[in-house]
Amino acid sequence: MAKLPEFADFTESTVSSQLVYDGGLLKVHRDQVRLHDGTLAWREYVKHPGAVMVLAFVDAETILLERQFRYPKNRHFIEIPAGKLEPDEPALDTAKRELIEECGFEASEWWKIATLDPSIGYSTEVIHLYGARGLKHVGAALDAGEHLQVFEAKVADAIEWVRQGVITDTKTTLALLWWDEWGRP
Amino acid sequence: MAKLPEFADFTESTVSSQLVYDGGLLKVHRDQVRLHDGTLAWREYVKHPGAVMVLAFVDAETILLERQFRYPKNRHFIEIPAGKLEPDEPALDTAKRELIEECGFEASEWWKIATLDPSIGYSTEVIHLYGARGLKHVGAALDAGEHLQVFEAKVADAIEWVRQGVITDTKTTLALLWWDEWGRP
Repeated sequence: MAKLPEFADFTESTVSSQLVYDGGLLKVHRDQVRLHDGTLAWREYVKHPGAVMVLAFVDAETILLERQFRYPKNRHFIEIPAGKLEPDEPALDTAKRELIEECGFEASEWWKIATLDPSIGYSTEVIHLYGARGLKHVGAALDAGEHLQVFEAKVADAIEWVRQGVITDTKTTLALLWWDEWGRP
Repeated sequence: MAKLPEFADFTESTVSSQLVYDGGLLKVHRDQVRLHDGTLAWREYVKHPGAVMVLAFVDAETILLERQFRYPKNRHFIEIPAGKLEPDEPALDTAKRELIEECGFEASEWWKIATLDPSIGYSTEVIHLYGARGLKHVGAALDAGEHLQVFEAKVADAIEWVRQGVITDTKTTLALLWWDEWGRP
């Protein structure tokens, strides 16, 4: 591995922590922290249960994509299947559950591709990226209020949609570029 | 462009909107929305001012990286320079400001690489990715309370650190893989 430089220690320690907004989806905390130099500061962040996303291969060149409306951005997005972890749910179980619930598919083979931190400035969220193949359609069972359209696309086409700005969702873009760079680990 | 399928319309419209947490950093909204099928639902999300990130080239093969402590994740991260937009600030001005404030560099040449949506499930955030070269050191002026270490690295080494899990910040990973895939647009 290429050598990293000597690093300074900027560790921040918690002085006090408060749940300042306890929403149905978002749990916002505001902590007083002590910086490495002894000064005090405030940190606000979202406590997130973590999430998974899945590159699900219909065949060697074709994956499942979804299109859904994302209210915070007020438009539709093309994404790979993804979802949040339930409490104490192992990430791979979430991935299997979401692939059935959102797309209606089971997969005979699963592998871990990467672990990513999508919003380190204001969220604890972590995303586990899995690959899946050997798909078998077992019928979708969308959550109430979930409205999305599943379709198949060539990986090469999806990567071209990234370049053209048709796909802008960061997690989806990253999964596609990672696959193009390294394929199956 | 590869053909996209016929898409359904899942547009959600705002019935009412409420600022439920007005923090120093995080502005959380809770909206009642009408779904495409007429049913009502709630949407919670963070209103974010938007952000920039910069692939800043010291030479053709070397970029600027930063290492800083990210409290929500309770550890240090290696990232490319980034920062939030001030109200009404054009994104390119933010990029130039952050490169000076965080790294102490001006650049003679700037170009836009991509626009990305990092947290479409619960944030309005958009990230504008720029490239910069022709760097000239003018001295850093970090914000009070900002504590980070700037260092130079080969792009190829940084990409290897992604594969090895040393770099897991999604925006940084995406910028590096995008550069490796397409270079300068």
